[in-house]
Amino acid sequence: MSTPTRTEKDSLGTFQVPADALYGVQTARALANFPISGRRPDPDFVAATVRVKRAAAAANHACGSLDDRRADAIREACDQVLGGAYTDQFVVDRFQAGAGTSHNMNANEVLANLANLGLGGECGVYDPVHPNDHVNQSQSTNDTIPTAIRLAALAKLPRLAEAVREMAGALEAFADRERETIKSGRTHLQDAVPTTLGRELAAYAWTLREQVERLEEAAKSLHRIGLGGTAAGTGLNAPPGYRERAAEELSRLMGRPITPHPDMAAAMQSMADLAQFSGQIAALAGELTRISNDIRLLSSGPRTGLAEVQLPAVQPGSSIMPGKVNPVMFEMLNQTLYQVLGQDHAIQAMNRAGQMELNVMMPALGSALFDAMEWLTASVSAATERGVRGMTANRERNREYALASVGLATLLNRAIGYEKAAEVAKESERTGIPVGELVAEHGLLSREQFERMVEEAAKNGRVDF
Amino acid sequence: MSTPTRTEKDSLGTFQVPADALYGVQTARALANFPISGRRPDPDFVAATVRVKRAAAAANHACGSLDDRRADAIREACDQVLGGAYTDQFVVDRFQAGAGTSHNMNANEVLANLANLGLGGECGVYDPVHPNDHVNQSQSTNDTIPTAIRLAALAKLPRLAEAVREMAGALEAFADRERETIKSGRTHLQDAVPTTLGRELAAYAWTLREQVERLEEAAKSLHRIGLGGTAAGTGLNAPPGYRERAAEELSRLMGRPITPHPDMAAAMQSMADLAQFSGQIAALAGELTRISNDIRLLSSGPRTGLAEVQLPAVQPGSSIMPGKVNPVMFEMLNQTLYQVLGQDHAIQAMNRAGQMELNVMMPALGSALFDAMEWLTASVSAATERGVRGMTANRERNREYALASVGLATLLNRAIGYEKAAEVAKESERTGIPVGELVAEHGLLSREQFERMVEEAAKNGRVDF
Amino acid sequence: MSTPTRTEKDSLGTFQVPADALYGVQTARALANFPISGRRPDPDFVAATVRVKRAAAAANHACGSLDDRRADAIREACDQVLGGAYTDQFVVDRFQAGAGTSHNMNANEVLANLANLGLGGECGVYDPVHPNDHVNQSQSTNDTIPTAIRLAALAKLPRLAEAVREMAGALEAFADRERETIKSGRTHLQDAVPTTLGRELAAYAWTLREQVERLEEAAKSLHRIGLGGTAAGTGLNAPPGYRERAAEELSRLMGRPITPHPDMAAAMQSMADLAQFSGQIAALAGELTRISNDIRLLSSGPRTGLAEVQLPAVQPGSSIMPGKVNPVMFEMLNQTLYQVLGQDHAIQAMNRAGQMELNVMMPALGSALFDAMEWLTASVSAATERGVRGMTANRERNREYALASVGLATLLNRAIGYEKAAEVAKESERTGIPVGELVAEHGLLSREQFERMVEEAAKNGRVDF
Amino acid sequence: MSTPTRTEKDSLGTFQVPADALYGVQTARALANFPISGRRPDPDFVAATVRVKRAAAAANHACGSLDDRRADAIREACDQVLGGAYTDQFVVDRFQAGAGTSHNMNANEVLANLANLGLGGECGVYDPVHPNDHVNQSQSTNDTIPTAIRLAALAKLPRLAEAVREMAGALEAFADRERETIKSGRTHLQDAVPTTLGRELAAYAWTLREQVERLEEAAKSLHRIGLGGTAAGTGLNAPPGYRERAAEELSRLMGRPITPHPDMAAAMQSMADLAQFSGQIAALAGELTRISNDIRLLSSGPRTGLAEVQLPAVQPGSSIMPGKVNPVMFEMLNQTLYQVLGQDHAIQAMNRAGQMELNVMMPALGSALFDAMEWLTASVSAATERGVRGMTANRERNREYALASVGLATLLNRAIGYEKAAEVAKESERTGIPVGELVAEHGLLSREQFERMVEEAAKNGRVDF
Repeated sequence: MSTPTRTEKDSLGTFQVPADALYGVQTARALANFPISGRRPDPDFVAATVRVKRAAAAANHACGSLDDRRADAIREACDQVLGGAYTDQFVVDRFQAGAGTSHNMNANEVLANLANLGLGGECGVYDPVHPNDHVNQSQSTNDTIPTAIRLAALAKLPRLAEAVREMAGALEAFADRERETIKSGRTHLQDAVPTTLGRELAAYAWTLREQVERLEEAAKSLHRIGLGGTAAGTGLNAPPGYRERAAEELSRLMGRPITPHPDMAAAMQSMADLAQFSGQIAALAGELTRISNDIRLLSSGPRTGLAEVQLPAVQPGSSIMPGKVNPVMFEMLNQTLYQVLGQDHAIQAMNRAGQMELNVMMPALGSALFDAMEWLTASVSAATERGVRGMTANRERNREYALASVGLATLLNRAIGYEKAAEVAKESERTGIPVGELVAEHGLLSREQFERMVEEAAKNGRVDF
Repeated sequence: MSTPTRTEKDSLGTFQVPADALYGVQTARALANFPISGRRPDPDFVAATVRVKRAAAAANHACGSLDDRRADAIREACDQVLGGAYTDQFVVDRFQAGAGTSHNMNANEVLANLANLGLGGECGVYDPVHPNDHVNQSQSTNDTIPTAIRLAALAKLPRLAEAVREMAGALEAFADRERETIKSGRTHLQDAVPTTLGRELAAYAWTLREQVERLEEAAKSLHRIGLGGTAAGTGLNAPPGYRERAAEELSRLMGRPITPHPDMAAAMQSMADLAQFSGQIAALAGELTRISNDIRLLSSGPRTGLAEVQLPAVQPGSSIMPGKVNPVMFEMLNQTLYQVLGQDHAIQAMNRAGQMELNVMMPALGSALFDAMEWLTASVSAATERGVRGMTANRERNREYALASVGLATLLNRAIGYEKAAEVAKESERTGIPVGELVAEHGLLSREQFERMVEEAAKNGRVDF
Repeated sequence: MSTPTRTEKDSLGTFQVPADALYGVQTARALANFPISGRRPDPDFVAATVRVKRAAAAANHACGSLDDRRADAIREACDQVLGGAYTDQFVVDRFQAGAGTSHNMNANEVLANLANLGLGGECGVYDPVHPNDHVNQSQSTNDTIPTAIRLAALAKLPRLAEAVREMAGALEAFADRERETIKSGRTHLQDAVPTTLGRELAAYAWTLREQVERLEEAAKSLHRIGLGGTAAGTGLNAPPGYRERAAEELSRLMGRPITPHPDMAAAMQSMADLAQFSGQIAALAGELTRISNDIRLLSSGPRTGLAEVQLPAVQPGSSIMPGKVNPVMFEMLNQTLYQVLGQDHAIQAMNRAGQMELNVMMPALGSALFDAMEWLTASVSAATERGVRGMTANRERNREYALASVGLATLLNRAIGYEKAAEVAKESERTGIPVGELVAEHGLLSREQFERMVEEAAKNGRVDF
Repeated sequence: MSTPTRTEKDSLGTFQVPADALYGVQTARALANFPISGRRPDPDFVAATVRVKRAAAAANHACGSLDDRRADAIREACDQVLGGAYTDQFVVDRFQAGAGTSHNMNANEVLANLANLGLGGECGVYDPVHPNDHVNQSQSTNDTIPTAIRLAALAKLPRLAEAVREMAGALEAFADRERETIKSGRTHLQDAVPTTLGRELAAYAWTLREQVERLEEAAKSLHRIGLGGTAAGTGLNAPPGYRERAAEELSRLMGRPITPHPDMAAAMQSMADLAQFSGQIAALAGELTRISNDIRLLSSGPRTGLAEVQLPAVQPGSSIMPGKVNPVMFEMLNQTLYQVLGQDHAIQAMNRAGQMELNVMMPALGSALFDAMEWLTASVSAATERGVRGMTANRERNREYALASVGLATLLNRAIGYEKAAEVAKESERTGIPVGELVAEHGLLSREQFERMVEEAAKNGRVDF
């Protein structure tokens, strides 16, 4: 290659680094070692890593183990990156060295070079600021990377929560409009008792809001970080008071109550809190899968399906069938959800693969989680905006089903008992005559009275014979 | 406990064994160690283990390392168990010692005691036939257990294959009856082009037959066994010629071409062939899941669903809704299938957990596989007998859908182009007027001509405008 | 079959029931329909179902819709079963009708017959107490079964929690004994900084206690029940006040604060709370998997492994290798855990399969959960009693590793910088001379001083050069 | 936005398209609808789609339904894209409309515009070549997309197979070098019988080669394509002979025997063959996981682990522990493998989600598969080149373990019986005296004789006392 390079050196010897790179030798080695996916680190993860570095510098400075000049230069370098500059210098593939040593060193090198440049030095010299001795001071990949993963997940959470709440809100708005729209319930996909379209969709909204609350609850444990445990959770080489000060600084940077983990060794052995957070995302994805499946079924038709609701047409549905309109936003949502479930599957397996003092699967675990959160946020938002918001009810159709359902026989239980009511239902099914007509034929109630009873049953669950 | 006991001894010391037990000290220890599920070994697995013991005795005898008297006694003992006696003496829990040492010793002890009893000896003395030195001669848990798991799976396979082929046959019989039943296809759950009910269900049958063939194909690798590899695949302590003779004897006992594995070390490190066989069962379960879901949807109704097919009523559907009939056989099938998929999930994880020379997760892996096969066989048979066989078509309903479908606009593509056909479709959807009527209105074809064209399109994919 | 029978009738016609059965026609049909696994319902699930029936009878009575005589007779019947009698009359296979109609009717029939017998009636007549009209009054399978599943899970929880806390306690006792035992940490399975055996195992205990707390937290949502929603969450046919009174009665019977679900429709559409509870069990299983893997690795040897801890010998390890001792309790634990993960896989998929007003996969979902909880409880207890409690440390071996580890070069970071320390490490690795000796050779510290520093670093993370 | 645009129209109305885009209105709508992952289609998938279009044009031409001029123009347009031009015009997100309508229309539009430009027309006018009527002639998204997914997977297969075979070859080269290196086998992670390092690693190679063969076997069913089934597998609007000619043309383009699927309806209902192919990739990933885990364990150390093999140092291992060398290539491999397993999890779930005549989850299913294949290929290659090839054996260490193993007592079985041999093993474990010395002490064999016997046992499984 003819790209101009500079020579750098580490404990393995010399290695060429692109002359204009802000990263250094270890990053360059990692680029050569890991040409796997071509995907660079998640932006929130880069920012979180840099926040960790900034907080560590502040804490080291406060504890007296980093001098003013270096501390200021490192903080200044961090602020440049957090301001949006040089993010193209974070280059190591998502599949990389165990535990994320390469990504951590990428950050250490970029920040050391930036700090030295700020102090009038040059790239690749690492004096007066050294990637390991100063930027990484009191730190280990073992404690910075899991901390940065937790912080990145926390940074993404509000957007995801907002997207799901928006969908819940849109479903509620629909449910409010259709509170009085009676329909036939379906259990076992078979005619069941009357209910309302509003009740059905309000329940979806209730479930989604519940899921978001649980996700936020699950996120609480992510606020406990292992930073200060250094290698193996021993806290080796970190000064007294460091971990508390670093957590305080991160609390300030994140606007969240970040605290040191109560068991630093456990914090490094176990990624359980991330796995549980992912599990909660999967639970949310599971409910969304069910709801999205239901909406696709409710909107099936227009002539050969249930056709109880109608989705907005956002694009022609078929390359061969003219005029076809498909539930594309919810198909997209279902597909994304399956991939999100795949991410969780990977995350759970990676979580179980920790050994002794460390789980080396962290970089891919983090990446899988970040993708899951991003894709879920985007797909839920798109399905809300272009799907739920424009959805309308076919009220006549719903009413027809409500009055045709064989499940209406249930309204007779109290009056004539389950066994006699079953005979009415059987007769209706055999003859095709609606239950309401049979009730009138048998002289139990007029059709009008029966219809009012169905309305009341659907809306309030009341049956007064 | 007041059960009378006898005292036996092993390398850990003495231990009490129920006085009337045919098993011995190691089994008794295992009973105390593993009170986990209360579930005893699968019967086919017991039989397979005993066949392995019988084949080993025959091979050892043929190789000159086991004398006539002991060999005959062991074979006789095996034949008693294979004849159905003493199966209650195989008692170790399904969750037990890694690799199945406890189950293997259970077999060794029972057969040694039976052999000694046959030779006039008594239980618990192990002379002249010793569980390790004679029944387990030239064997290790490392090679007997994975061999027995493979043989047990092969024993179950014909019943499973037959059950699935029965279902395929029943679907084909239905498809034959409904070859001329036109219906609307549904893609994206939306109105699509006309097809026939026969084509749809024949395709299910095709897929199931394909799956069974693949399962039988996947079973081929199970015929290669590690028996003779003894510990760690080294073949230590097994005489020359032993592995070939043992495989021959097993071929005879199984009526299948059993052969020694080409790499004995690989045969012990890796359970890949069992995992792939399980994966194929999961693939079959996946297709059955889809088909069962479809049948439940096709039979939804009677008034508020698709109602294209009708399932036989095998029990009242609801405790509260009188006269309700639910697709209970396919609901049962779907539930069983999900558990079968859970078994595969467990099996794949256990397969990956092999370390160095051995995979110790074998007993639970085998158990999960045996359950999957048994449950799948039983549920497919039940769904066939009480579901598919009695299923009928609502031909009128299917025809109505075929003629109402907005997807009929596709038949106009060649004649007027996709864009104009789309306008017709849109008009039909907006006004509710069937495509056929619009075609007639526009003077393109009479309704009769159009209907004939729909029939032709549904049955043969032909459109001649 | 020659078993004497009686004839019963339901909406599908007549059917033979064993003459001495307390169950009736619908149960008999279900027995014929579902010969799948041969496994009867979980005992806690039977008890929970009967508690639901008892609470419903009490609530119906209090609301005036069930008379004194019938209410008393039903309650009396329930108390007989809860007292342990007639549990053999709950006979429907675990894979059965969607939503559990068959199990619900099994309970309704047994209790109706018992109630009628108590009132001087006879089996199979259903007068004055009818299975549907009285035992199932104000109920549906849709609301009783998910309620009973939740209550059964809650009944099992304390035993599981206790088992895990016992294991945590046993690990802590070990950790207390080995608080001063220095060892080499291992990250990436490679020599790392010194730590203590006590710290390592105390972290396992911390994690397990944390997991149990989360499981108990996840169980909170199981206290909200859909009872009173009847079919489709409408509350149809249930009297006002019923749901509150039923919940109160269940609170009393369970000794837990059971409350009506805030959205009855959501409670029937969604099994999310059960799925999340299962997810938390899987999370616990994931951590136990990691810890069990670690213990098996720490105890590897005796001559060719790490051999840092020694497990008690509970049975001979091998059928071919004399004197071998294997970590059988943790192998059993790992196997059980994989099956528990398989159960969760099935549960999550079943949870997603809800459609419209109901999730019909409930019976198998409940069964998978019950098995997971039972097997986990038993395996954790056994591994604690026969594994953790007898575990001892090889202190000398741990100390040797601590002093041999190339990771000791980390202690030099502050004194001579990362790069120079790396040179020492490389020299140690190349020559095989321990870091401590090199430090002495280089005149930095005496071997004694260095050894004291290692001790201090391992125990307190302090390095004072 | 100030990008200049042109106005296009479809059945939903007008829409703005970037003025210089080769794609058209439906692609533009899809860009607006699906801003999910920001990831564009896999390059092999784009090429496969274009090959399908080229084959369809050729077949339509041969069947007389497409005139010379249009056919030539379309073929010319396809060849331009296959030559590498305009691939930036394939822009729809990987998570998109069900079944891939958007991607299919993206291809139809780009090729129509290119064809028209070739014929002197202009972009966005679609005359004389229309995206639906001509480029998509005789096709549907239902048959083109699953065909293109299969072809893309086939295009990737040789690279993946080659990568795995390269790794197998590198393992075999290592095994050849270490054929005589005796070591202690480990079963249950405990001392077992002697074996050789060569046997152990040759078995890994055997397994990998077996896996690749199975993958190629599984790929055979991907050669059967549904092209010509058009919508719902009916073949509607496709001329007689079309499907055979299209398959022939694709055979030529792919250099593989592509054939029409025997059941066109099944080909659209079911993605089973892709799911099984993915399952086989997961099986391969499972074996690689086990092998990679083993290599990381075998190379653990250098002082506190097994240290039987040594991996090349490709980068410094730790940001805090100087001189540390970690098995980074295999850590990367393990991480990638877990994500590959996650992809398979998603694929299996998507496969099961087919409904009626179609599986709409195809685009994400394809994307998940493509990523899995790419990442697996790259990670296996990197681990081979920078891991396996430079791996060396610590022969002395292996020999020490072989002679120290308590498992050597197994060599005494034939001579003194299992029970007495167990006493020797116990004595060795208790006293720390190697089995070989005890054998000499007991006067059974000299140490030299015993050592020769160990060598013979390790290499040939022979024991001649």
